[in-house]
Amino acid sequence: MRIAFLGLGLIGGSIARALRRRGPDGPGRETPEVVAWSERGTGPRAALAAGVIDAVAAAPGAAVEGADLVVLAAPPMACVALLGRLGPDGDLGRRLARGATVTDVASTKSALLAAARTSGAPYAGGHPMAGRETAGFEAADGDLFRDRAWVVTEAVNEGDPARVRALAGACGARVVELDAATHDRLVAAISHLPLLAAVALVEAVAGGEEVRDDWGAAAGLAASGWRDTTRLARGDVTMGAEIALTNAPEIAARLRDLRTAIDAWIEALEAPGGPDADAVRRRLAAARRRLVG
Amino acid sequence: MRIAFLGLGLIGGSIARALRRRGPDGPGRETPEVVAWSERGTGPRAALAAGVIDAVAAAPGAAVEGADLVVLAAPPMACVALLGRLGPDGDLGRRLARGATVTDVASTKSALLAAARTSGAPYAGGHPMAGRETAGFEAADGDLFRDRAWVVTEAVNEGDPARVRALAGACGARVVELDAATHDRLVAAISHLPLLAAVALVEAVAGGEEVRDDWGAAAGLAASGWRDTTRLARGDVTMGAEIALTNAPEIAARLRDLRTAIDAWIEALEAPGGPDADAVRRRLAAARRRLVG
Repeated sequence: MRIAFLGLGLIGGSIARALRRRGPDGPGRETPEVVAWSERGTGPRAALAAGVIDAVAAAPGAAVEGADLVVLAAPPMACVALLGRLGPDGDLGRRLARGATVTDVASTKSALLAAARTSGAPYAGGHPMAGRETAGFEAADGDLFRDRAWVVTEAVNEGDPARVRALAGACGARVVELDAATHDRLVAAISHLPLLAAVALVEAVAGGEEVRDDWGAAAGLAASGWRDTTRLARGDVTMGAEIALTNAPEIAARLRDLRTAIDAWIEALEAPGGPDADAVRRRLAAARRRLVG
Repeated sequence: MRIAFLGLGLIGGSIARALRRRGPDGPGRETPEVVAWSERGTGPRAALAAGVIDAVAAAPGAAVEGADLVVLAAPPMACVALLGRLGPDGDLGRRLARGATVTDVASTKSALLAAARTSGAPYAGGHPMAGRETAGFEAADGDLFRDRAWVVTEAVNEGDPARVRALAGACGARVVELDAATHDRLVAAISHLPLLAAVALVEAVAGGEEVRDDWGAAAGLAASGWRDTTRLARGDVTMGAEIALTNAPEIAARLRDLRTAIDAWIEALEAPGGPDADAVRRRLAAARRRLVG
């Protein structure tokens, strides 16, 4: 079993760490040979030095040569470009082993599925639902996906979803089967909207490209509430941008729902005759119930 | 030195714990006598059983009798009502020691200052900037305010801000002097807006009083990003409501800024010809810079 990572940052590195730990542990379990390539090469070199992978490839073609499973662990738009080259006529696809499967870990799925359909790459999409605001292999953690959801989407061109389910299992994750469109709709709500809401909150309080006059004074009063609510806005910019760009309509629809909720808050606070105490209490209580049951 | 707490939940309890630990430690430092009353009495009884306070008072009048410092540690509107009774002609104010000061820990300051001005209570406002989503004395932690900001506002009616500064110091906090209006404007941005943004996010994704059809499926995919971004919406409902109701105009102004930022995100994602990649990248990068410098 040969596994090739194209991209090896926080997410790919965490999977590679889980595989390496798992390999020698499981009695009778085959230890995969793991090779990695990335655009800048820093993740693969660090992983090799840490004994987490077996080889660093100088080019993506050398990485996928003879691979049974290719894991695209780069930002979404880079994955789309790689899928375009992983079809039977592509420069990368021609080097895959017979029966190989390409999967990925990107936060959006429909754009990647469409790219695989177009190129003919043997693809079965995946999305492990965990992350951190710290990017790069240095932050990788073999327990990152333990007990977390790992979405597996529909396969095309004889990509084998069983390989993806096995990868999720090796990381201790639980598999959730969803079609790509449903994934993108749900993840827009539970993950992409919180990201852009955090960014919008920072823009409203600290300012966007122009800093607000009172940001310094306000920042001096910040406590854990501010830190947690805005944590996602500290994440990797390329990753966030490519998520937004490859799932824009679903995210925009959720942003409209958020705006509707905010408008209703403004209305409650600015009600004629003073703030609407009943509405304020009722809405805080309802939101709390959704979270704590 | 006699200190009376009116209300003894997470915040009051954390102060009482810090005072108790500090008292015997500091060589030559006077150990205050601490008495507490609360509406339901559960916090004071638990604190007495834990050896954190010296006495439980059956009524607020008995608690403030002869107190040098009264700490209002109830939700904001309850504090406003108590301040109304703590003036020289009030049933509680008549029992204060000569030279006593009333302070509080509420998250809004102008409404409390106005109540003190009206009643004549000897008031110097305070706001320790820390919190948790878990309410009640059980969650109290003597380190909650260590190295955190503790806002001290203007004093009225011979309330002594030095007493409040000493209380903050005993908890390991750093004092930030602000007038009540400035406090309310800044804290609306850094604390109250994040609370309502978290609630609006829950409403948009999970539904408000009517649960959304796809909430169950989305919740199954939730990871740490969702949990952190919505953590504030798990907090105490009465506290949240009274904060919103006593600082409504400042919060509404910040909600409008948030709505402006969200509108600009919708516009960037729905730009004619496809999402505006430059704007998306530029805005994510700018927000990240505000947080990580």
